Amino acid sequence: MAGLYFGDVQVGQVFKTATHRVSRADILHFAADFDPNPFHLDQGAAVAAGLPDVIASGFHTLSLSFRLFFQLHLWDDAVLPSPGLDQVRWTRPLYPDENVMVRATVTEATKSTSKPDQGIIRMLHETILVESEKAILTVQAMHRLKVRPVAEGAG
Amino acid sequence: MAGLYFGDVQVGQVFKTATHRVSRADILHFAADFDPNPFHLDQGAAVAAGLPDVIASGFHTLSLSFRLFFQLHLWDDAVLPSPGLDQVRWTRPLYPDENVMVRATVTEATKSTSKPDQGIIRMLHETILVESEKAILTVQAMHRLKVRPVAEGAG
Repeated sequence: MAGLYFGDVQVGQVFKTATHRVSRADILHFAADFDPNPFHLDQGAAVAAGLPDVIASGFHTLSLSFRLFFQLHLWDDAVLPSPGLDQVRWTRPLYPDENVMVRATVTEATKSTSKPDQGIIRMLHETILVESEKAILTVQAMHRLKVRPVAEGAG
Repeated sequence: MAGLYFGDVQVGQVFKTATHRVSRADILHFAADFDPNPFHLDQGAAVAAGLPDVIASGFHTLSLSFRLFFQLHLWDDAVLPSPGLDQVRWTRPLYPDENVMVRATVTEATKSTSKPDQGIIRMLHETILVESEKAILTVQAMHRLKVRPVAEGAG
């Protein structure tokens, strides 16, 4: 499944990542760097906020979800910087020692009219809590990919 | 400007963060952890991809932009986990040693009908490159805030 280019991906295609266990240390480390809200950093503060434990920063859940996806190495030779994301929804917090994986479904594939050597793949990324099989984060992501180069001497 | 609750924030209000200089080490470190694409990690690979230098992972630009915003400590006593983000758009890469700040404008404030003690503030977050005064990232973010508690003995 590696080595994909724009034209190789079909609407409806589903990719599933490996499972990743999120440690308490990871949650505290990311929060200290990027989102130092007490309910990400301190169990007492989380309990005072009505939560059973610290929760991962949403930006941490988002970043690690895409790391899992990038680790599939689907299109390392074709990928270009992404234009963006839509409808990022954190539907349940992520707690220490929980296991997540990502299911990514192709929803749209649009060739660029201005740049005929590239196109945009839109995908629904669902971060699934393995323990409950429920999505805790959903994202509509755009992936900008090159069209497969024409082989030398072809045509 | 600290100590704000849901009802204290008005549509049209603008908040500006401090400026932050993004180091090469920061870019490489975040990319190694979350987005190990060669054009984030290796200058030669970036040049081969048509870029002048490595570029920050979009998830890095996003996370550090919200760190700058959280460091304003606008509503530390009122903030609850966010429902999500919309229209995340990376409009220009972020390179090593560039300086950014965030301008965040309140676009909507909606009290919850189901939970009368809280509401959602929608804001446009623009990450501005100080050198050019142009936005390199724009995000429509939702912030879920508590309504200010009624003082004891009031009413």
